[in-house]
Amino acid sequence: MRPVLLLALLFAVPAVAAPVPLETYIGGRVLASSAAGETAYIYEWPGVYFEARFSGDSVDLKVDDDQNNLYLYVDGVHKLTLTKPGHTTVALKDLGPGEHVVRLEKSSETQASTGKFEGFFVPSPDRVLPLPHYDRRIEFIGDSYTVGYGNQSRGQTCTVDDVAATTDTSQSFATLTAKQFNAAYRIDAFSGRGVVRNYDGIAPGDTLPVMYKYTLFDKSAGVAEDGWTPDVVVIGLGTNDFSTPLNIGEKWTTREALRVDFVNTYVAFIQSLHAKWPAAHIILMASTKYENEVADAVTATAEAARTDGVTDLETIIFSGLDWQACQGHPSLKDEAILSQLLSDRIARLPKFH
Amino acid sequence: MRPVLLLALLFAVPAVAAPVPLETYIGGRVLASSAAGETAYIYEWPGVYFEARFSGDSVDLKVDDDQNNLYLYVDGVHKLTLTKPGHTTVALKDLGPGEHVVRLEKSSETQASTGKFEGFFVPSPDRVLPLPHYDRRIEFIGDSYTVGYGNQSRGQTCTVDDVAATTDTSQSFATLTAKQFNAAYRIDAFSGRGVVRNYDGIAPGDTLPVMYKYTLFDKSAGVAEDGWTPDVVVIGLGTNDFSTPLNIGEKWTTREALRVDFVNTYVAFIQSLHAKWPAAHIILMASTKYENEVADAVTATAEAARTDGVTDLETIIFSGLDWQACQGHPSLKDEAILSQLLSDRIARLPKFH
Repeated sequence: MRPVLLLALLFAVPAVAAPVPLETYIGGRVLASSAAGETAYIYEWPGVYFEARFSGDSVDLKVDDDQNNLYLYVDGVHKLTLTKPGHTTVALKDLGPGEHVVRLEKSSETQASTGKFEGFFVPSPDRVLPLPHYDRRIEFIGDSYTVGYGNQSRGQTCTVDDVAATTDTSQSFATLTAKQFNAAYRIDAFSGRGVVRNYDGIAPGDTLPVMYKYTLFDKSAGVAEDGWTPDVVVIGLGTNDFSTPLNIGEKWTTREALRVDFVNTYVAFIQSLHAKWPAAHIILMASTKYENEVADAVTATAEAARTDGVTDLETIIFSGLDWQACQGHPSLKDEAILSQLLSDRIARLPKFH
Repeated sequence: MRPVLLLALLFAVPAVAAPVPLETYIGGRVLASSAAGETAYIYEWPGVYFEARFSGDSVDLKVDDDQNNLYLYVDGVHKLTLTKPGHTTVALKDLGPGEHVVRLEKSSETQASTGKFEGFFVPSPDRVLPLPHYDRRIEFIGDSYTVGYGNQSRGQTCTVDDVAATTDTSQSFATLTAKQFNAAYRIDAFSGRGVVRNYDGIAPGDTLPVMYKYTLFDKSAGVAEDGWTPDVVVIGLGTNDFSTPLNIGEKWTTREALRVDFVNTYVAFIQSLHAKWPAAHIILMASTKYENEVADAVTATAEAARTDGVTDLETIIFSGLDWQACQGHPSLKDEAILSQLLSDRIARLPKFH
């Protein structure tokens, strides 16, 4: 009998277990890729986050990103920032027993490089808990204001490196507002882009409604049909269309032609969103900057959209910010003001009471 | 025989090994405290760092700090920032085989709260490698300029929170210079403090030469005799003595009385350092700001110190900075300029060729 006993004991040895991946809530547009039985998620849009629940006192995360800063939260507390970490596995230990929520959030903006999230892992299957669940969902579509471009800066003069170091999407009004309502969110925003015209006429054709069709900015991957259905869609566009004079060679020869194209294109974009998500409440945001040109065009857009049947739509025209962040962008103080303005409106919706 | 066999097999099970602490190089003043056979290090001065070498692909670190930001470097690359992490164990895994250097560095300034480093750990004793070794040693003594007060800010207007968020001692000219020479360093600097008078006369008596005697700012712990012997001592003091008008009730009734006290006290402080480290080269730094009052007093101090026998001493009087960081402090651009000025001088010393 001895050999049998020995074998039984060997199998009873608690070997070092292979880490078990956690089911993960994905906040934002990502491209799933599978290799060797493991799924990773390639991301490029700002503010993308990954969140999972587990029990026990440790969790690992694997990431491959040499361009972005990523915030790691445990139970809602920002514990670590991964600073352009490259291909890295980080573990948090000694978290104490019981249930925990782990969350990784992209805080920086990169317009020409992707990162890859390779998963959260726990030591054994009994540590796995079901996905976080969200009853409320908000989609944000916009430009640098929604990204939080340079918002951590305490001055307007910024180099490219300064902007990279001071952009914190986790502190943009979009993220602040969503978290206040404990809502799931997506931030489909791209600094410098407009409805028909980008900042100073750059990258003609690749406006936000065009980029919006893609998960990756090189247009190699469209947006997957993943069932995402927002309750509210907040759009902040128009600043880049109107903030600079028209250059020779651009598509429009007069401001009026630009304005007409803007309104028509914006209405069509809004209609496409409304057709996809007919129950969603739509909010258009615009500042009074640039002698009200943006605000007037957005107000005209809202009227036209309502006339065309998109009635569950309102505008927020804002002013009174200090614009003290990079290149005159909203400061952290301004982000709080914008979030308050927006939250007051969203709080009126039954689901967000 | 069965029970004996069973017992033998149970002991042969490769149990999860207890983590092995790494011998750690301590850069800066700390207070060692032992509990349950483990040594922890309480720190409060800026720029304190902990560094260790190991082989293999993982390392743990334990820290208890709810006020500071701490940078974690692996092989010289900044991988993580611990953001006021509290009592936390962080592990880096999948680092690849071979030798690695891990380093934790305090980047923020706190003047009234300590943090505790509880050690680096590896899974087994064969992963332990000897301490990092430094041939060159620099001590920095100073005020907010040496701390790197608000240096990440892109504007001069900063709240208290802004200053906390934008102070990065890892980017002060002191740290930049030491790292350029691969030198060990200590940063004994305290924002707002002067030689005889602090900024605007605050905290009278608790000047930098007084605080310098302590490891912790509540004066509960003096400086341990640990054999630290710098090759170079760089002192940047005087700005806080002279940058504000004298207030009624202060010790000095005229600027001249302040100046005389400054020179006498500064010379005595320099002499005490020279007596302790007779081979150390001493560099006094001062800006031309405030109508040269600081620079003139520091120049007079240098002359008096030389007359008194401290001959291995020079001054760096600097101007031409942009002062665009919080409350007119040196910006990151300025830190680079100051580091270059200082490095040019230090490079002339035989040991730093």
